Amino acid sequence: MAHPTSAAMKLPPFFEDDRIAVDAALERLLPQESTRPASIHQAMRYSVFAGGKRIRPILCLETARIFAADVTDALHPACAIEMIHTYSLIHDDLPALDNDDLRRGKPTCHKKFDEATAILAGDALLTLAFETIAATPVAPAQCVAIVKEVASAAGTINGMVGGQVADLEAEGHVVDPEMLEYIHRSKTAALIRAAVTAGALCAGAPDDDVVRLRRFGETIGWAFQVTDDILDVEESSAALGKTAGKDMAQQKATYPAIHGLQRSHEIANELASKAVAELAPYREAASRLKEIATYLVIRRT
Amino acid sequence: MAHPTSAAMKLPPFFEDDRIAVDAALERLLPQESTRPASIHQAMRYSVFAGGKRIRPILCLETARIFAADVTDALHPACAIEMIHTYSLIHDDLPALDNDDLRRGKPTCHKKFDEATAILAGDALLTLAFETIAATPVAPAQCVAIVKEVASAAGTINGMVGGQVADLEAEGHVVDPEMLEYIHRSKTAALIRAAVTAGALCAGAPDDDVVRLRRFGETIGWAFQVTDDILDVEESSAALGKTAGKDMAQQKATYPAIHGLQRSHEIANELASKAVAELAPYREAASRLKEIATYLVIRRT
Repeated sequence: MAHPTSAAMKLPPFFEDDRIAVDAALERLLPQESTRPASIHQAMRYSVFAGGKRIRPILCLETARIFAADVTDALHPACAIEMIHTYSLIHDDLPALDNDDLRRGKPTCHKKFDEATAILAGDALLTLAFETIAATPVAPAQCVAIVKEVASAAGTINGMVGGQVADLEAEGHVVDPEMLEYIHRSKTAALIRAAVTAGALCAGAPDDDVVRLRRFGETIGWAFQVTDDILDVEESSAALGKTAGKDMAQQKATYPAIHGLQRSHEIANELASKAVAELAPYREAASRLKEIATYLVIRRT
Repeated sequence: MAHPTSAAMKLPPFFEDDRIAVDAALERLLPQESTRPASIHQAMRYSVFAGGKRIRPILCLETARIFAADVTDALHPACAIEMIHTYSLIHDDLPALDNDDLRRGKPTCHKKFDEATAILAGDALLTLAFETIAATPVAPAQCVAIVKEVASAAGTINGMVGGQVADLEAEGHVVDPEMLEYIHRSKTAALIRAAVTAGALCAGAPDDDVVRLRRFGETIGWAFQVTDDILDVEESSAALGKTAGKDMAQQKATYPAIHGLQRSHEIANELASKAVAELAPYREAASRLKEIATYLVIRRT
């Protein structure tokens, strides 16, 4: 399959505005580096501000924007989900798990600090995420719904930690397509789905819309992980800012390994189209979400 | 100081009823061992059912009982806090932290399973704790207040993770009494305070009572950790079910190390008296809380 042109691979322009808003909110929400005990706050900030693209918080904000002109309230769950994403990367990189030294082109948290600090910084970010959601300036019932959605997506039953465990268990084994799908939907799609759903809940979207957008989030999250698998094969470590080719070296369960590269590209595109179809009822109001969905499967990093 | 008689050191009888209720609720709330992915659920259950005394959940239930005849609702936050306590023990025992092989007389989670599973089981318990609080059958505003209280107590600023970090940083250093107090109040007292406060919030206690009981929880939690320090010096590994004398071996900041054993006993007793004084307005309604408070400083394990 031919690579898309570089113009098509650029981040949509509104991404930058959202990213700046998210970074400013994270700056406010994370304790200062000088706050006692300093080392943990330095480690939390180091990893949160290590150059993430903020895809999950941006999906949260842009979903909220379908229903609300002002999406300031959604910054709380948006940042909370980025904290959870960051904690998962810190723990995933630990020697006992993926044992990775490089993340986004920088030393991983346990390399920059030490293992104890990295473990506790991950714990602290997960904890702060729920404190942050609880401080969302919306009605308590919405707040509780967001806590449920996010905790479930980050948990063990069809959630992020469950997917990480299944992913580790699958290393070196032949997995069937059903297990591969389970791993990807749990490990990655669940939290992306929660980001989208939290945006809808925060903006007071009607129940039907929450259900429809949850499907959008799940499907685009799945496409995102298939694309990640593809990039691990097709791109260099320099381009990715992390060790490329690692999935194959670790005998990870990936779409290219099971379905081949060409079919994996097709699957990613099919999933993205299916996701975008869910947005039809919102017409122009969902144009940004559509742009993100398209970007997520044509990106090269 | 003479040891109390063995009769005085027994668990109050209602402890057993509460413990059974808490264990039954944890049994319901934790995923089954057979649920995919099985290994993480086995590890979570292994550590949660490793013989903890359930002091935090019992404090939560007995605080709720001051205001409510039926404390069933409080089982949710009670179990959530026990999950958080268990996660903190699993991570604390890891080789990169305290590197302990024994906990409550059994192999620690990473010895029984492996390090990756122990890290993720801790993460999963922390996540499930917030999902559990969000499912408490009380008004959403109470639920949100409990999430805030618990997340703050488990976090880095005067909370559990902050205390653990300061505790690790203090190893091998001379700390002043102020820092020692900070470590103990953060590492241990904060979560015990949250258990008490969550019970009050869950039972719909008026604001004044929430504030008063939060002070009780903080003070008795502090006394609890001073007593833990004393037991590490005075008792055997067999009695404690964990490695005794480890604080001194690791040059931990403890009350006996800074204040001596006799003064440490006095401090524990003074704190317990101060805590019990907060319960005066509740008279007989707080008799069980008083019994717990007394037990927590005279226990030998």
